[in-house]
Amino acid sequence: MTELFDKVAILGFGLIGSSLARAIRTHGLAREISCGDASTAACAKVLELKLAERATTDLSAAVAGADLVIIAVPVGACAGAAKTISAALKPGAIVTDVGSVKQAVIDAVSPHLPASVHFVPAHPIAGTEHSGPEAGFAELFRNRWSILTPLSDTDATATEKVARLWRAIGAQVEIMTPKRHDLVLGITSHLPHLIAYSIVDTAATMEQSTQAEVIKYSAGGFRDFTRIAASDPVMWRDIFLNNRDAVLEILQHFNEDLTELQKAVRTGDGAKLENVFTRARAIRRAVIQAKQVDP
Amino acid sequence: MTELFDKVAILGFGLIGSSLARAIRTHGLAREISCGDASTAACAKVLELKLAERATTDLSAAVAGADLVIIAVPVGACAGAAKTISAALKPGAIVTDVGSVKQAVIDAVSPHLPASVHFVPAHPIAGTEHSGPEAGFAELFRNRWSILTPLSDTDATATEKVARLWRAIGAQVEIMTPKRHDLVLGITSHLPHLIAYSIVDTAATMEQSTQAEVIKYSAGGFRDFTRIAASDPVMWRDIFLNNRDAVLEILQHFNEDLTELQKAVRTGDGAKLENVFTRARAIRRAVIQAKQVDP
Repeated sequence: MTELFDKVAILGFGLIGSSLARAIRTHGLAREISCGDASTAACAKVLELKLAERATTDLSAAVAGADLVIIAVPVGACAGAAKTISAALKPGAIVTDVGSVKQAVIDAVSPHLPASVHFVPAHPIAGTEHSGPEAGFAELFRNRWSILTPLSDTDATATEKVARLWRAIGAQVEIMTPKRHDLVLGITSHLPHLIAYSIVDTAATMEQSTQAEVIKYSAGGFRDFTRIAASDPVMWRDIFLNNRDAVLEILQHFNEDLTELQKAVRTGDGAKLENVFTRARAIRRAVIQAKQVDP
Repeated sequence: MTELFDKVAILGFGLIGSSLARAIRTHGLAREISCGDASTAACAKVLELKLAERATTDLSAAVAGADLVIIAVPVGACAGAAKTISAALKPGAIVTDVGSVKQAVIDAVSPHLPASVHFVPAHPIAGTEHSGPEAGFAELFRNRWSILTPLSDTDATATEKVARLWRAIGAQVEIMTPKRHDLVLGITSHLPHLIAYSIVDTAATMEQSTQAEVIKYSAGGFRDFTRIAASDPVMWRDIFLNNRDAVLEILQHFNEDLTELQKAVRTGDGAKLENVFTRARAIRRAVIQAKQVDP
């Protein structure tokens, strides 16, 4: 694979940022990787793990001379990062991000970018419950989707270059409007996380003895929710603050459906329960057929 | 390991029944295993897989001469099974079960058992989303808990013998009242399944184009719910019909907590969200420390 970029700057070396650095390195897609991260500890770890040629807490210095800048900080920190790097961006550079919410990130980042750079918003549908530079791995994006939500005035060549990067590291690329992205991800990712956080917190606030039993006998289903609820709290706080309308709309749907199931339990409607459970099972088969399940 | 039992009869060769047969065989805990299953196809599969010495749809014939009878049919079918085998049970035999609900199973089974047999209700906290005789494996119960809920008049020697069986196949044993069991499992298993079924069904009832996207981008959290929602629909229908009060009580807790989170999203209360998410993460660590997570 020939180099797609000369210098790539990645801002934020969490799970996604550090996995991107590893994947770009593994596939030889850039001559140089530069790390910008607000945490000195993270920068030290990045250098220790040799994930980048240089690492600095000065985001402006990190992006200087980069022809691709990947903003991989929590959604709520995107505006600040964009403002900080604005004056240091090389004319003609491509700026992209990996935020789980798209419209809010576009609104936050766009105003700070000079007209001479190309902004290609992106979101890879991949992750684990682990955080930080040590948690990343090069194969994270393999067979996963990366959704690009270019603006009407985004340069098509820039969008295609970002798409080539994702394909080169094993992902499939889909183009979507920011609004559609935020709705679909609200269903597939934000709602499941909110539900998991809620059910796990229900246990966390129970009396000590019950909580101990819940943990002890968690293998019956609860432990799978704790895995989802182990994701980075700040990242997820920002997602909910920035995709509020879609999340609230979907939550209303969910509440209606749960109320119906609750009624079926209360009235002993076995046929209704079996019907819903059978329908849900068919969706699992479709997910497996779509190859979105790890072997 | 010396044989604990001469002849063990297992009624119902689903995931749990067939895993028990394999584990008992692997550890040499019985001289003979007999299978009773209402499905001729399941009986044929059991013989083909050599999971039992004999397999029959006649449950009475299956239990004849057995010194341990394990009822491993869905909770709603326990009463019928107990009634069918009642007259064929050997005096002094131990009868146990593996139902996910305990009080309702005790109420359903006890009246049919002659005074000469010992009933030791049990529930192993183990499982996968797969069903049927092919889905079982001998290691399913290793490092998992099996909860026994003996009645006040259950023979202590019989209880200890059932406990020894579970320990011999790698499980840890805990004694609990049926009421406590049904509450704790309502939290750790029944509620998570109801929630997962509900959220997956919400997607199942969406318009076709949205549903296709939800499946396509399911790796963001939704797919983990589909795994839980792939469990056997009849088994789960019976669980909800038979643990109604505990499930409804816990569901009310959950609804209150979710409503609070929903309010935090609506009002943009980031501190509250981060606080809840951080607390949930601590529970995950406790689950890992309790060794209830597969490596």
